Amino acid sequence: MTESIFTKIIRKQIPCHLLYEDDLVIAFLDINPVRLGHSLIVPKIQVDYFVDVPVNYYQAAFSLAQKLAPAIQKALGTTRIGLSVVGTEVPHFHLHLIPIEQDRIEGIRTFGNAAVLARQAELIRSVLNQA
Amino acid sequence: MTESIFTKIIRKQIPCHLLYEDDLVIAFLDINPVRLGHSLIVPKIQVDYFVDVPVNYYQAAFSLAQKLAPAIQKALGTTRIGLSVVGTEVPHFHLHLIPIEQDRIEGIRTFGNAAVLARQAELIRSVLNQA
Repeated sequence: MTESIFTKIIRKQIPCHLLYEDDLVIAFLDINPVRLGHSLIVPKIQVDYFVDVPVNYYQAAFSLAQKLAPAIQKALGTTRIGLSVVGTEVPHFHLHLIPIEQDRIEGIRTFGNAAVLARQAELIRSVLNQA
Repeated sequence: MTESIFTKIIRKQIPCHLLYEDDLVIAFLDINPVRLGHSLIVPKIQVDYFVDVPVNYYQAAFSLAQKLAPAIQKALGTTRIGLSVVGTEVPHFHLHLIPIEQDRIEGIRTFGNAAVLARQAELIRSVLNQA
């Protein structure tokens, strides 16, 4: 099996704007965000289809979503977060967390800027670590 | 709190094309399907935002998704199912299960037809009950 880009991130072969990781899951900012704070949660096992993800990885991913969403909201001043698993663009199951209401912080043009992403990730991590 | 349409379905005040139910969750066909087999999984507690759903209801909903998706595929001849929680149209947390690849059964025009929905629900239930 070819390693997915997410497996390469998990193995630290590709850098990411890390938000959280443990033995089962990793979360980081989407490198091509559609909204401020657009984040991904990925199990640390490369399985394409959600149906086939082992239950401990699967439940860990959705459980993290309940913790990460409020941290994104608090850190970035965004409101409600949408959860989505529509993607087939990377054959490695993952959740998108995407703010779906109006952002209070402007910056659409700089969403994908590395320095801006790094700062966002730092803010979100600091809120997660307080929790 | 106003009762959501889903709470009315759960209380049997409004009929549905039932796929599955237990103490925590209910699943039924979407009455306005965007694809053949478009289904909803709803926890039996009226909570708007996924972050706030009690963990047992929340995990039961995602756990059911792993069982229901293969049943829809087998029953209706659809292929991969997408999972989505984007909706804010009903203020009652729910998962959409939507076939995302080409259907092998034709019938776009009749997706919302009550008799067609009833037959689909029957097929999916029969597969679920075999499992």
